[in-house]
Amino acid sequence: MGALPPRDPSDNAVLSPDGNTDGRKVTISVIAQEAGVSVPTVSRVVNGRSDVAPDTRRRVEQLLNRYGYNRRALRTQAKPSARLIDLVFNDLDSPWAVEIIRGIEDVAHNAGLGTVVSATHREPVAARQWLQNLRARASDGVILVNSDLDSPVQEELRRLNVPMVVVDPVGGSPRNTPTIGATNWAGGLSAVEHLTELGHRRIGFISGLRQMLCSRARMDGYRAGLEAAGITPDDALIREGDFYHESGFHGGRALLELDDPPTAIFASSDTMAFGVYEAVRQRGWRVPDDVSVVGFDDLPETRWSSPPLTTVRQPLAEMGALAARSLLRLAAGDTIESPRVELATDLTVRESTVPPRRSSG
Amino acid sequence: MGALPPRDPSDNAVLSPDGNTDGRKVTISVIAQEAGVSVPTVSRVVNGRSDVAPDTRRRVEQLLNRYGYNRRALRTQAKPSARLIDLVFNDLDSPWAVEIIRGIEDVAHNAGLGTVVSATHREPVAARQWLQNLRARASDGVILVNSDLDSPVQEELRRLNVPMVVVDPVGGSPRNTPTIGATNWAGGLSAVEHLTELGHRRIGFISGLRQMLCSRARMDGYRAGLEAAGITPDDALIREGDFYHESGFHGGRALLELDDPPTAIFASSDTMAFGVYEAVRQRGWRVPDDVSVVGFDDLPETRWSSPPLTTVRQPLAEMGALAARSLLRLAAGDTIESPRVELATDLTVRESTVPPRRSSG
Repeated sequence: MGALPPRDPSDNAVLSPDGNTDGRKVTISVIAQEAGVSVPTVSRVVNGRSDVAPDTRRRVEQLLNRYGYNRRALRTQAKPSARLIDLVFNDLDSPWAVEIIRGIEDVAHNAGLGTVVSATHREPVAARQWLQNLRARASDGVILVNSDLDSPVQEELRRLNVPMVVVDPVGGSPRNTPTIGATNWAGGLSAVEHLTELGHRRIGFISGLRQMLCSRARMDGYRAGLEAAGITPDDALIREGDFYHESGFHGGRALLELDDPPTAIFASSDTMAFGVYEAVRQRGWRVPDDVSVVGFDDLPETRWSSPPLTTVRQPLAEMGALAARSLLRLAAGDTIESPRVELATDLTVRESTVPPRRSSG
Repeated sequence: MGALPPRDPSDNAVLSPDGNTDGRKVTISVIAQEAGVSVPTVSRVVNGRSDVAPDTRRRVEQLLNRYGYNRRALRTQAKPSARLIDLVFNDLDSPWAVEIIRGIEDVAHNAGLGTVVSATHREPVAARQWLQNLRARASDGVILVNSDLDSPVQEELRRLNVPMVVVDPVGGSPRNTPTIGATNWAGGLSAVEHLTELGHRRIGFISGLRQMLCSRARMDGYRAGLEAAGITPDDALIREGDFYHESGFHGGRALLELDDPPTAIFASSDTMAFGVYEAVRQRGWRVPDDVSVVGFDDLPETRWSSPPLTTVRQPLAEMGALAARSLLRLAAGDTIESPRVELATDLTVRESTVPPRRSSG
């Protein structure tokens, strides 16, 4: 990944309506003329400033959108690039986050950009504070990591028109925003295939946060894996989690307390799988002798859990790196051909899964 | 933590030689006059630019130092604050890092500053690239987290005279650079006191990286704890680690293979303690039945290891938050009264420690 090409500050050429740079070039003054406003007013709209009358803003934005206007090229006229990427998490409280940061920082650092890390804690106030900071520092782009931003903040981000990439989208992402995810459905399928091949028929499942697309995809993969082995999914074997240890512990305990407990449990994150380990231990059982456990993520520590965890690897650092590279391309005015990318997941078999030793229904 | 007070761009008042702002005010033009150079030349020195003759630089720097010159106040004359903090790690590969980031981001975010996270991987090339990026983005300050920067980079940082705070210093830090650490010696002592109170006499130890001050302090605390219980430290029970899982595993395995293995092992990090867990499991033993294990850090996942880990808590997020607050004060021109702060460590007893059940020499 090389550095961004240096920008010519006089370059205010923008995309033509068909997204083809060979087409008619549109400049800020053309937009101003068509909108019947001054050039500074168009600049204010482009820069997302609030001191523009709503009607005027709407008119200018319609023109900007009609011409597929690349506002970044324009913004660089006003002030030099800050050479920053803004990376936004809901929370910074998981080893998962550091993997993503690592992948992004690596690419950004080599390109001469700083990676500004923020957490919004799902609080509208914190998100608005972040947005205000973002505007002040004129970042080159934003990477949102399964961020739950409320509508006003999303609307404001669109108005700023900063290049944006979403990692692991929560739900539907705005059109034209590239998203980077993993093949969660295939990952869920591969976990269950591994367990059914070992002979397990009664396989518990602990989901991630229901509102997240990746959670749904993993559960659908789980169901598909069961059905592929001729097993009818049983809702009594499914518990809802939130990706964190504690929910894995409670989900695992509930499953183990069933009259006919599962012989294997597939948790939708490694941290929840470790919660299941603890539920197994507290019951006086052992992993994998009494219960096999599969996780999802392949965090570095899974190699060192006791026993080492069989898990579905999603390439978090690579997802981060790809997000950063995509963002740099957007910032340079390129278009992204495939705006929805899913990197492959891969089952890593370690020592937490063996053939079932208890008999089960 | 409130926002930085707004700076008056005309405020080029600086500290008098006794560090008291009530004293004589010194301006950039006074320095220029005394040095017999132009005001722009002084500015170039203040801003760390290289286009100044070495002799001139030396003369100006001597005057700046003599007057205890607060260069930041000056730099703000030249360009507006970037509202950024630069946070530098050696590596972004541990759950430990995310705790530090969380503490810093929280304070910075509320103060309207962005936290730029970088990793230098102990590579001079990466460190120089970071320094170049730092200059381009005109950060308000730098937080180094046990960073191993080589001398040229350290020298350049001093020349830039950006406010700086060091978290968990590797070795001796530059004079006048505030450092934030934890009471590592007392933490080591408390771990061993807990084990000797349980009745352990043969206690193994796995150190952190030898060149780090915190590693030395933990080991000295370990030795002091043994001696306080009337036990002569035995070098055969000490293994060197590097804070990561694998070194804990190897150190733990070596200790367990001794003819007279220890009944308890104190590892200088939680991740190494988990490596010990795995060594215990592979030997066919169990924690804590056969070997008690104590870690250091109290990472969030220690609550959920099997069994939950007894460990010395160091308040990583609070250390990060204090570093950020100290940096904001430096950036605002305040002085820090106590430049060497150690936050208290605290033993958290969970389920990995019990009285010894095997007899030992």
